[in-house]
Amino acid sequence: MAGAGKQMRGRPLVDKVLRATIAEMARVGLEHLAIEEVAARANVNKTTIYRRWATADDLARAALTFASEADLAVPDTGSLRGDLHAFAREFGRVLAHSDVPTMMRMRWGGDGRGPLAKLMREIQRKKHSRWKVMLHRATKRGELRKNADADLIYDVVVGALLYLTVLGPTRRSLDHLNRAIDVILDGALKRTAP
Amino acid sequence: MAGAGKQMRGRPLVDKVLRATIAEMARVGLEHLAIEEVAARANVNKTTIYRRWATADDLARAALTFASEADLAVPDTGSLRGDLHAFAREFGRVLAHSDVPTMMRMRWGGDGRGPLAKLMREIQRKKHSRWKVMLHRATKRGELRKNADADLIYDVVVGALLYLTVLGPTRRSLDHLNRAIDVILDGALKRTAP
Repeated sequence: MAGAGKQMRGRPLVDKVLRATIAEMARVGLEHLAIEEVAARANVNKTTIYRRWATADDLARAALTFASEADLAVPDTGSLRGDLHAFAREFGRVLAHSDVPTMMRMRWGGDGRGPLAKLMREIQRKKHSRWKVMLHRATKRGELRKNADADLIYDVVVGALLYLTVLGPTRRSLDHLNRAIDVILDGALKRTAP
Repeated sequence: MAGAGKQMRGRPLVDKVLRATIAEMARVGLEHLAIEEVAARANVNKTTIYRRWATADDLARAALTFASEADLAVPDTGSLRGDLHAFAREFGRVLAHSDVPTMMRMRWGGDGRGPLAKLMREIQRKKHSRWKVMLHRATKRGELRKNADADLIYDVVVGALLYLTVLGPTRRSLDHLNRAIDVILDGALKRTAP
């Protein structure tokens, strides 16, 4: 059973176990994560996991950090509109096949306290500061209207993309996402021509 | 213990039980809802509940429908900007004290199948068509730009408001919500002056 796993070493083995952990968390919820089940899903020996992570909590923590590192690339096309269209494409693509249900369950399933909840918030915070760079570059280039608030525009973009890809009743097309970006930018960018 | 509850009749009693049900679902999750616990929380006899709802599932269904009826008023101020500012105020107020954690847990905690998941989706659908009336009125009044897509603008507004009030890392002020509405409308509305 665990033959394939036993041959694997180092980073590929770790990745495989962490991917299986995310999948298990999505299936049973964080509170019921069992190292035995992760081992079975990853097709490795339990001891392979226990050697690196002593408890299910340690394993969950490592898996969450891993999932957050497989993050969206931040586009740099030279214009905010170009960046956000590229970002929308990545956002739609990644979120369709990602650990959103796991993340949402962890966000809303527990009481929002404890070290894992804190880790989740920290991961989110880092993500947002990475992504916000697109807006900061636009501000530096002078693309935004006078008095435009880069943080606010960022919030509106991320809220709209989340709603259109995972939270709303219908998963929208990339064309729909791009038009949403355009509605926001038509209000936020300097008029280029009279 | 159940003295106060026993004196209550009709609609007030039903409301009290359904409010206790929502609170219990938020605490333990839908899957662990127990009529006994609801009775204790509402301070009524178990039989009072069993007389109206035979199972915990029936009770959960009634509570979800009840929660969805306590819905946001749809403003009608005569302009889309006025409507959406009023809507943002209501949205922020209601969602701060509402059953959002319960709803989110139900949305993401289960497998998204089954009659209750279907009911949740139906409730959401009705909510959105009620709220979307604000956009339809604006279209009729000719407020939107040519080629503006009312459904799209609605999605962007709702996504932004959800993110700014409950989903994002920080719960934003009403002023922040209003400025988000303005960014969107600056792109969506006809220019009033050259």
